[in-house]
Amino acid sequence: MGATDLRCVLRLGNSKKVTIMSDAIVKQIEEQGNEVRRLKGDKSSTEDAKNEAIQKLLALKLAYKEATGQDYAAPNARQSKPKKEEKPKEKKQQQEKKPDGKKQTLLGVGTKKDENYSEWYSEVITKAEMIEYYDVSGCYVLRPWSFAVWEAIQAWFDSGIKKLGVKNCYFPMFVSNAALEREKTHIADFAPEVAWVTRAGQSEMAEPIAIRPTSETVMYPSYKKWVQSHRDLPIKLNQWCNVVRWEFKHPTPFLRTREFLWQEGHTAFANPSDAEKEVFQILDLYAGVYNDLLAIPVVKGRKSEKEKFAGGDFTTTVEAYVACNGRGIQGATSHHLGQNFSKMFDISYEDPAKEGERAFAWQNSWGLSTRTIGAMVMIHGDDKGLVLPPRVAAVQVIVVPVGFKTENKESLFDAVDKVTKDLVAGGIKAEHDLRENYNAGWKFNHWELKGVPIRFEVGPNDLAKNQVTAVIRHNGEKRQMSLDGLSEAVKTLLDEIHDAMYQKVLAQRDSHLKTTTCMEEFKKLLDDKCIILSPFCGLPECEEEIKKASTREDGEGAQMGAKTLCIPLEQPKQELPSKCIFPSCSHAAKAFALFGRSY
Amino acid sequence: MGATDLRCVLRLGNSKKVTIMSDAIVKQIEEQGNEVRRLKGDKSSTEDAKNEAIQKLLALKLAYKEATGQDYAAPNARQSKPKKEEKPKEKKQQQEKKPDGKKQTLLGVGTKKDENYSEWYSEVITKAEMIEYYDVSGCYVLRPWSFAVWEAIQAWFDSGIKKLGVKNCYFPMFVSNAALEREKTHIADFAPEVAWVTRAGQSEMAEPIAIRPTSETVMYPSYKKWVQSHRDLPIKLNQWCNVVRWEFKHPTPFLRTREFLWQEGHTAFANPSDAEKEVFQILDLYAGVYNDLLAIPVVKGRKSEKEKFAGGDFTTTVEAYVACNGRGIQGATSHHLGQNFSKMFDISYEDPAKEGERAFAWQNSWGLSTRTIGAMVMIHGDDKGLVLPPRVAAVQVIVVPVGFKTENKESLFDAVDKVTKDLVAGGIKAEHDLRENYNAGWKFNHWELKGVPIRFEVGPNDLAKNQVTAVIRHNGEKRQMSLDGLSEAVKTLLDEIHDAMYQKVLAQRDSHLKTTTCMEEFKKLLDDKCIILSPFCGLPECEEEIKKASTREDGEGAQMGAKTLCIPLEQPKQELPSKCIFPSCSHAAKAFALFGRSY
Repeated sequence: MGATDLRCVLRLGNSKKVTIMSDAIVKQIEEQGNEVRRLKGDKSSTEDAKNEAIQKLLALKLAYKEATGQDYAAPNARQSKPKKEEKPKEKKQQQEKKPDGKKQTLLGVGTKKDENYSEWYSEVITKAEMIEYYDVSGCYVLRPWSFAVWEAIQAWFDSGIKKLGVKNCYFPMFVSNAALEREKTHIADFAPEVAWVTRAGQSEMAEPIAIRPTSETVMYPSYKKWVQSHRDLPIKLNQWCNVVRWEFKHPTPFLRTREFLWQEGHTAFANPSDAEKEVFQILDLYAGVYNDLLAIPVVKGRKSEKEKFAGGDFTTTVEAYVACNGRGIQGATSHHLGQNFSKMFDISYEDPAKEGERAFAWQNSWGLSTRTIGAMVMIHGDDKGLVLPPRVAAVQVIVVPVGFKTENKESLFDAVDKVTKDLVAGGIKAEHDLRENYNAGWKFNHWELKGVPIRFEVGPNDLAKNQVTAVIRHNGEKRQMSLDGLSEAVKTLLDEIHDAMYQKVLAQRDSHLKTTTCMEEFKKLLDDKCIILSPFCGLPECEEEIKKASTREDGEGAQMGAKTLCIPLEQPKQELPSKCIFPSCSHAAKAFALFGRSY
Repeated sequence: MGATDLRCVLRLGNSKKVTIMSDAIVKQIEEQGNEVRRLKGDKSSTEDAKNEAIQKLLALKLAYKEATGQDYAAPNARQSKPKKEEKPKEKKQQQEKKPDGKKQTLLGVGTKKDENYSEWYSEVITKAEMIEYYDVSGCYVLRPWSFAVWEAIQAWFDSGIKKLGVKNCYFPMFVSNAALEREKTHIADFAPEVAWVTRAGQSEMAEPIAIRPTSETVMYPSYKKWVQSHRDLPIKLNQWCNVVRWEFKHPTPFLRTREFLWQEGHTAFANPSDAEKEVFQILDLYAGVYNDLLAIPVVKGRKSEKEKFAGGDFTTTVEAYVACNGRGIQGATSHHLGQNFSKMFDISYEDPAKEGERAFAWQNSWGLSTRTIGAMVMIHGDDKGLVLPPRVAAVQVIVVPVGFKTENKESLFDAVDKVTKDLVAGGIKAEHDLRENYNAGWKFNHWELKGVPIRFEVGPNDLAKNQVTAVIRHNGEKRQMSLDGLSEAVKTLLDEIHDAMYQKVLAQRDSHLKTTTCMEEFKKLLDDKCIILSPFCGLPECEEEIKKASTREDGEGAQMGAKTLCIPLEQPKQELPSKCIFPSCSHAAKAFALFGRSY
């Protein structure tokens, strides 16, 4: 019985069956594990055979998890091994002694980013109070510190699309099976991850109802009703909502979660050129979210045939680079759906140009999710914790009193309060930290961990000189700033910080953005954490071969193969070689594609 | 086999079983229908017996609907009777002749509000393009015209709570059964309406997962983690999200839907007085949403024991009055949870006052939903369609060119465009309607149906006098307005319209707000579409009796009994009688309660 058969049986299961079934799966997992080890030791076995065996093993482990709700663990480890994502190491607290002898906890990050970026990430997002873990696997709490980033992105992007004439709306989160299955290519992509509601209270439903993984199939039956004439076009709608994709891969907060927040825009036009124009207008807005808000450079491009949105004509994307692990990360996608969905859903009208004929709408859909926040953390964070780009920071300036004694406390606190209020009145997101149960050193660490772009230290000596000391989070630089015209100076400084953060990431990325036409060099560059521009024929089969050829197995487990991140809109200046990078590919290169390991 | 037993069997059902079961239910429904008719004809039968029989009949019909996904219809009607909510009469289009002889459709409302408010409501919300119907029962599409109202409410309320120090966040929509069942009183209230996800892709889940009906049980396990000391309090969080309550009563767009949008605030304090103070601060903000945005007067009050939030200490509410059917409608609720949830979820810390003892947090929760939009439609709408209160209108001024001919069209359209742009620059939400395939009369009707507060008619004669003609939606008044200083004048006019709409609704309500101490008069007032202030002992049993006593069966079906809308915070000036309104109640009156039929 293969993994697929097992799932079919499990579909019928109740909790008793599950116990019986899970024992059966355990046996198969053990056998398949042996097979994988055998193949790995056997020099005559092909990469394909190994990959297939590994895939089968993973599928069995998923089947186990589905049946039991728990990760599979090898027999000698099964009792004790904690689930990685459920128990982040939160409490590596260090102790420091205050001058007065009291103990305080110092909430530092215990893991260095370069040593173990995955553990570092878990620590940062929990200790910076961005994420709280939750008892439903793959779901996480977005705490105010991360949600504020999302609110900043929402405000900026929402205003951008409204200028393009897009209006907000809200469609139901539930989809009937009939609507969901209308577009076959599309649903084939999403079906394995769809969550189904089958019961309300104590009553089984007559028909299971799906929770939207995306809303094409939710919205387009309405579009059909609304489009009676070419005058009803364009339709330009957007919604900010939650979607559910019940992935079985290892979840990561922000980056791969079963429920996430996003916006999804869905537009329909009478002609393809208007639709295509909008695809790129939206892509520019997405690039703006990264460049202008998150201080992250992105490459704009088209997705390859293999990577494009299922059911659409073409997909455009913005791709960022994560230096700590050398991976590309998809930032947001803007799809041109062509007439595929309008034909499936009959979004049509009498063609004004050809009497008696139906014309079908040209459609786009585009989405940006809370994954943005994960990219921001990964890319800007450092060994001290989070580093917030100034334009999305919930707090841009934290004002901390220093060097106070009993006799000057009141006047100093008043001064801190006044500085803070003046900043707020000047349009700066400023707060002060007047807590008396923590010393200044603890506060410095705390707000550095939380990534606040600027710390103001306000003490008697600075005040006497009509100034404060500003400490800049991303580079640790200190500078004195006059209290006169402070708000304006801070605004300038925040822009300066934004630009410096952007340039730093850009330099990191550009030093890892290489061009090659040689497959061997390609593999080496990949292991050197590079993303790579190479000539590519564009065919899915060839992309699959490149991925396999660049998959690497080493002592620490498999390193995934490269896939195309995008075909950059702006191609390299050098001439395109005639041949595709893959040695045995006989097709001509169509363009330079950007390859990389990827999230 | 009773309705409950039936549901137990249905829980096991698959589609074949369902067919068999549904036939069994049909038989029972017929028998129970006969029983109800018998009791109605039998003068010796008590109201209780009748009510019980009707309840059982309704329960059976629900069981039928759950099993089949369709409403039960009597045998001779079963084939042809359309589902009421699925097929609103959308196309009662009238025809008018344009002067040039072309036909145009005139999209009027075919039903008068006073004649059939339910059908009128369906027509208005669909024709005004607020709602699109959807193929999952109880779910509706919020189109941009209604969603803009929600966005206006969001912006205003969000800014209000942020001034109180509340921060936004996002918790998962999924709840584990374990968390959900933690607070027994609370879950008992919600359990029958909880939607359950049991399957992902093709895999049955090990444990079914609930979709939040509200988030107390989602959020409070995190609160437990976050509260270690009194210094961690207060916690003041809010989220804007969707929730699901799978009700089996007849759904109505905005007013009773299975998925709806709301905000839910959840706060925790170290002492009860801070918590209670906030309950009323939030209640004032809710009253502000109705008074200051929606132009709807509300009564602030406490809910009775019977009507309060399950698991909380007390509930406060704002209650509005719907004149067309004489019903009260709950506008939003702000709950003081006391320590009930903090004890269940162990949200506690070492008591700084009593060494070695645990102190439990004092909590509130409060919510406002898209039901607001339904109340707005019901209360302000008229026979011409929607009437939008100016401060939530997506378009406040629609500018329409009139009296144009080929020779002056260009200059007139330019003038319309300039007027509109000046208004927009002045901060007014203004749009123009320059469509050439509709005449001015059609446009007037169209924008009246959509409820735009002010229409500007811009024609050559008015322009020659440096003025435009303004037509006010809610009262039909026309006035000339000078083009000089137009934006400021429009702002004043919008405020004037807001006040006039508020006063009109207030007068309607106050003429139907009566006080009585006599049960017979109470019943008569109720049938006269009044809401009634009466002395009340406060006991749930007595409220139940009053409800039964005021339930009326007439030719057109049962009229629901009265319940308490609230115990108004501001009590009538007259002295409270010693006795409760209910004749056989032996308890003393505690306060005047506001009674009414209710949504």
